[in-house]
Amino acid sequence: MWKQIEEVLAEELVAGRYPPGSKLPTEPELMARFFVGRHTIRQTMARLEARGLVRIEQGRGTFVHDEIVHYRISERTRFSQNLLDQKRDPTYRVVSACEIVPPDTVRDALKLASGEMVTQIDVDSFANDVIIAVSDVYFPTARFPNVASIYTELNSTTKTYQRYGIQDYIRLSTRISSRPPTEDEARRLFQPVSRPLLITRKTDVDPDGLPISYSETCWCADRVELTVGQSDSRAPVPGDPKRE
Amino acid sequence: MWKQIEEVLAEELVAGRYPPGSKLPTEPELMARFFVGRHTIRQTMARLEARGLVRIEQGRGTFVHDEIVHYRISERTRFSQNLLDQKRDPTYRVVSACEIVPPDTVRDALKLASGEMVTQIDVDSFANDVIIAVSDVYFPTARFPNVASIYTELNSTTKTYQRYGIQDYIRLSTRISSRPPTEDEARRLFQPVSRPLLITRKTDVDPDGLPISYSETCWCADRVELTVGQSDSRAPVPGDPKRE
Repeated sequence: MWKQIEEVLAEELVAGRYPPGSKLPTEPELMARFFVGRHTIRQTMARLEARGLVRIEQGRGTFVHDEIVHYRISERTRFSQNLLDQKRDPTYRVVSACEIVPPDTVRDALKLASGEMVTQIDVDSFANDVIIAVSDVYFPTARFPNVASIYTELNSTTKTYQRYGIQDYIRLSTRISSRPPTEDEARRLFQPVSRPLLITRKTDVDPDGLPISYSETCWCADRVELTVGQSDSRAPVPGDPKRE
Repeated sequence: MWKQIEEVLAEELVAGRYPPGSKLPTEPELMARFFVGRHTIRQTMARLEARGLVRIEQGRGTFVHDEIVHYRISERTRFSQNLLDQKRDPTYRVVSACEIVPPDTVRDALKLASGEMVTQIDVDSFANDVIIAVSDVYFPTARFPNVASIYTELNSTTKTYQRYGIQDYIRLSTRISSRPPTEDEARRLFQPVSRPLLITRKTDVDPDGLPISYSETCWCADRVELTVGQSDSRAPVPGDPKRE
């Protein structure tokens, strides 16, 4: 019985009958619609969740799986927490690292004297194993010696700072722009060149206000949406209690 | 004499010798370079400013004209002030207005009961007579009767709210995404379809937290960059004292 109901609902979900992130009809509503008991509906929902079509939140209801990652930008933005809040598994993968004379933008952002070097780390970011962004992160080499291997080992910006004794940091203003990807970027992000990137540029500073890293991130705009401002907003973040 | 200096500098500016938004060499530096007096340099700069190549800021210096509008998003975002801060002349032009049954997104954002109408106003936004964005703004019709003509008359969101007795408002969170324009949007923004739009979606609320408008804005990404977060950032906003 639940196998049939599962197929009906799966088809409706794939066809987009319920918008991504929206709440599915309640158990009583589904019981009424399909003339079955609560147990059957629960079994069906568990199956749909296993197929990645919905997400069950205890005590709140069942939500249509939302493919878009809603990435919140604030002073306290932390990549991992941001994704965990949306029940996505966050991963970084270091693609390359090198020590370079910084371009002017980077030198200005990090307030370096001319001649000071930076370590540039090239990182892929994933949500549930889907690549969502490629970044260039720049650390002042003098303050962060050997940062490439430490970053690769810890796989986290926050933990990397901690290893150098920086327990807290905030991000200064973020600049947001958009452009088409280069062929390389498109290939790396597994996206067509005809679909744009969202670009963010930001500087992290330590509690004394000293710049500790600058980064430029290219987000696949079809997979990520940025959110800024009060969190009691109407942004359809799946799992946002305000949607109830 | 200044005519020749003007041409040399104009050529360098057009060729991109000085990055947009950056500060030009000081008067003494230019005097030394061209073997002329302060008066000649001042005349030259006034001419370059008249040609739209530089911007003179009293007591601060002369800056290379920056084509990109840096649009700051915060709780207190005001379109006009944002542009005036960058010495751009802001204008709205209402393209059309109609009373409609709101789409679900709009109804949810404005927390309307089903059946309540909204007034949709379609607006072009300009900076110095260059179109930078097209927006759909939605007002709840019951609270804002006749809003289309009032908005058209006042040409300002803030003044429109004031006319209805709303002295203050804040914007809730802004969602930022990107996509290629439709052919219509590209035509309206005078941009190629191959260049992306930055899309912002936001809700304004009155001091009681009641939603008073919802809007979706499509920004030409080649003409506008968004900035969020602390204003003591490294964002190269021309005229930002932090750049000094």
